[in-house]
Amino acid sequence: MEIYLDNSATTKICPEAAEKMIYVINNIYGNPSSLHSKGLEAEHELNYARKAVADSLGVDAGEIFFTSGGTEANNLAVFGAARAKKRLGNKIVTTSVEHSSVYESCKALEAEGFEVEYITPEQTGEISEKQLYNAIDENTVLVSMMIVNNETGAIFPVNSLRKIVKEKKSPALIHCDAVQAYGKIPVKPYKIDCDLLTVSAHKIHGSKGSGALFVKKGTHIKPIIYGGEQEKKIRPGTEALPIICGFGAAAENIGSIEENYMRMFNLRNYTAGKLLKIDGITINSPASSLPYILNVSAVGVRSETMLHFLEKKNIYISSGSACAKGKKSHVLSAMNMPAERIDSALRISFSKYSSEEEVDELVKAIEEGMNILVKSKI
Amino acid sequence: MEIYLDNSATTKICPEAAEKMIYVINNIYGNPSSLHSKGLEAEHELNYARKAVADSLGVDAGEIFFTSGGTEANNLAVFGAARAKKRLGNKIVTTSVEHSSVYESCKALEAEGFEVEYITPEQTGEISEKQLYNAIDENTVLVSMMIVNNETGAIFPVNSLRKIVKEKKSPALIHCDAVQAYGKIPVKPYKIDCDLLTVSAHKIHGSKGSGALFVKKGTHIKPIIYGGEQEKKIRPGTEALPIICGFGAAAENIGSIEENYMRMFNLRNYTAGKLLKIDGITINSPASSLPYILNVSAVGVRSETMLHFLEKKNIYISSGSACAKGKKSHVLSAMNMPAERIDSALRISFSKYSSEEEVDELVKAIEEGMNILVKSKI
Repeated sequence: MEIYLDNSATTKICPEAAEKMIYVINNIYGNPSSLHSKGLEAEHELNYARKAVADSLGVDAGEIFFTSGGTEANNLAVFGAARAKKRLGNKIVTTSVEHSSVYESCKALEAEGFEVEYITPEQTGEISEKQLYNAIDENTVLVSMMIVNNETGAIFPVNSLRKIVKEKKSPALIHCDAVQAYGKIPVKPYKIDCDLLTVSAHKIHGSKGSGALFVKKGTHIKPIIYGGEQEKKIRPGTEALPIICGFGAAAENIGSIEENYMRMFNLRNYTAGKLLKIDGITINSPASSLPYILNVSAVGVRSETMLHFLEKKNIYISSGSACAKGKKSHVLSAMNMPAERIDSALRISFSKYSSEEEVDELVKAIEEGMNILVKSKI
Repeated sequence: MEIYLDNSATTKICPEAAEKMIYVINNIYGNPSSLHSKGLEAEHELNYARKAVADSLGVDAGEIFFTSGGTEANNLAVFGAARAKKRLGNKIVTTSVEHSSVYESCKALEAEGFEVEYITPEQTGEISEKQLYNAIDENTVLVSMMIVNNETGAIFPVNSLRKIVKEKKSPALIHCDAVQAYGKIPVKPYKIDCDLLTVSAHKIHGSKGSGALFVKKGTHIKPIIYGGEQEKKIRPGTEALPIICGFGAAAENIGSIEENYMRMFNLRNYTAGKLLKIDGITINSPASSLPYILNVSAVGVRSETMLHFLEKKNIYISSGSACAKGKKSHVLSAMNMPAERIDSALRISFSKYSSEEEVDELVKAIEEGMNILVKSKI
C-alpha cells in the first residue's frame, strides 16, 4: 500500500486529466496560432480549457492567461504589476511567508528600487487585518498575499484587502497566490475583489508545468516574457497544449468543494487527535487553517530522518515546501518557532482522495518512528 | 489524406515521445524536488531527459536548463545575458529577422537603456560576416543570432561569431536560437563556440510547452523568473515532467541528421522544381537555405486565400511564423521584398516524415489554386 500524503507538493494526475492529455497527445497536433484548420482545432481545445479554468473561478475566459505554472504566474503578477504601476509609487506589501516565487520576486524588485514590506505572521501563523492596515499606504502599488500558506495551511485575510487599499487611498493592485487554496475552498476573484490571482494545475490533479494568472479585465500589467501574439502578448510562446488541456479537465473535475472540505475537516481533526496522543508531537498549523494541510513537529527527530523512516514504509510526506528542497523552513522561522520544532517539522497534506485508513498507517508509523528514532539518539 | 507541411510551426508528436509522456502521466507523479523516493523517481526521469537533450547537443547535462519552450529560453538568454553583463557595455547585436521572442526582448531592453543594432539581411535573406564584423564592438555585451531563419530557412554565419567577438575585443556572450536548426543540421554549441543556445521540443516531434537553454559551464546569466531551487535557480518552478520526458524521448529519436538532410535536400529541390513550372511562383528562400523550409510567393493570390483553398483539400502550410498569427512578415519585409511577394508568401516546411507524394498533391493544389484564384480576381 502506497500512502501519498504530500499533496501540497504535487498531486497524482486524475483519470479525467490523464485521459484528456492522452487524447491531445495522440490527436491534436496543430499550433493554436496557425491559421489553418489544424491550428483552429488546437485553438478550440485551448479555448475549451481556458473556459473550464475560468468557470472554476467564476471569471471570464478572457481573464485567464496560461503560464508554465504557479511560479511563473506569481512572477508575472508581481513583476508585471509593480513595473506597470511604478509611476504611482514604489512600495510593495507582502508577507514574509509567501511562496518563494513571490518572495524572491519581491527581493529582486528591491534591487530595482522598490521598497518592500514583508509582514510577519503572529506566532500562530496568522496575519491580522491590523497588520495589513498598518503596512498599506498611498505609496503602495502592489499587495501580494497568498490565500492559504503552503506549509501551515494558515488562511490569510485576503477578503479585507480591497477595503484597506481603498481606505488608505492606495493605487495598489491586489494579487493573491491561490495555488494552495484553489479547489479546496471557493476561490472567486470577484468575491475577493482582487486584480490578479494565481492558480496551478498540479495541485488539483492536473499536470506539473501548467498554471494560470487571472488578470481582471482592464488591469494593465507588464509581461515578463516577450515574443509572439499568444495570450494577448501578456504571455507569448506556443501554448503547452497537452498539459493545458489536462488543466482544463482537472478544473472541471474538482467536484464539490464544500463536501470535500467537510470530509477533510474531519480527516484533519482525526489525524491531529491521534497524533497528539504521541509523546513529543506538537501541532504547528493554526486551529483555523485549511484542513488539507497539517503541519506538526515530532520533536526529537530531525525531519529528514523521519521522512526517510516513513518512506521505507511507503508513506510519503514532507518537511515543508518541495521548492525549497530541504532547506530550513522560512515560514516556521518567520513564526518565531523554536529551532527544535522547525528542525522536526512534518507537513502532512491531504487530497480529496485521502482516507482514514491511510492516516491510521501514517500515525502508527510516526509513533513507531518516535519510539525508535528518539531513543536511538540518546 | 491529410498533408501537413507546416512543420516549422509545430510537428506531430512522434510515437516514442507520446509513449514516454503517457508512461509518465500514468506512473510518475512525484515532485522532482521532493526528498522522498516518489520525488527521486521523478527526478530520475527528469535527469534522464536532461541527459538525452544534452547528448543530442554534445554538451554536459549540467548545462541544460529546461524552460516552457523556445520563447522563454530565448527571453532567458537575451535578458539574462544583457542584464548580467550590463556593467561591461550597453550594446546588443542581433538581426532584424530573429524570431519575435528575441526581437521583442531586444526592443524591451532598449527601454532599459541598451542600444541594439539589428542587422538587416541582404536581399537574398542572408547575413554576411562583414555585416557582423561592422556591428560588433568592444561595447557589445550580447550577440544573439538564429542559426536558421524560421521563415526562409536562411542559414546564418553563427560559426564566425566567436572569431569576430575576439577580434573586436568584445565582452559579448554569444547566443544562438537553434529552434529551427535543431535536429535538422548538427547543432553543437561547442563547435559553434557559443555561450547560450535555445532549443524547443515541439519542432522535433516533442510536445508544445517544453524547451531548453544551453548555458555553457561558468557562464553567468540573470534569471527572468524567481522562486525555488529548481534548475539551479536559473529557472525555478516545478518542472513540467510529462512533456520534459517527452522532449528527452524526441531528442533520443532524432535519427540520422545527415540521412534526413539529404532526403530533405532532394525533396526541397523536387518541390521547388515543380513549383517553378507554375506561372507566378517565385522562390523566396536563399539557394543555400535549410532544405526543411521552402518559402515561395504565389504572386496574385493573397497568402490567406491560398491557405484557405489548400486547407479545403486537407493540405496545411502557412504564410510565415505561426507566432505572428497572420501579421505581415517582418522577415520578408526586412529582405526588402516587393509587397506583392510578401502578401502572397507561402511557407512549406517539411519534417523527416514528409514524402514526394505529399509534395505532388501540394503542387497540384497550388497550381489549381493559381488557376482559379488569380483568374477570379480579374
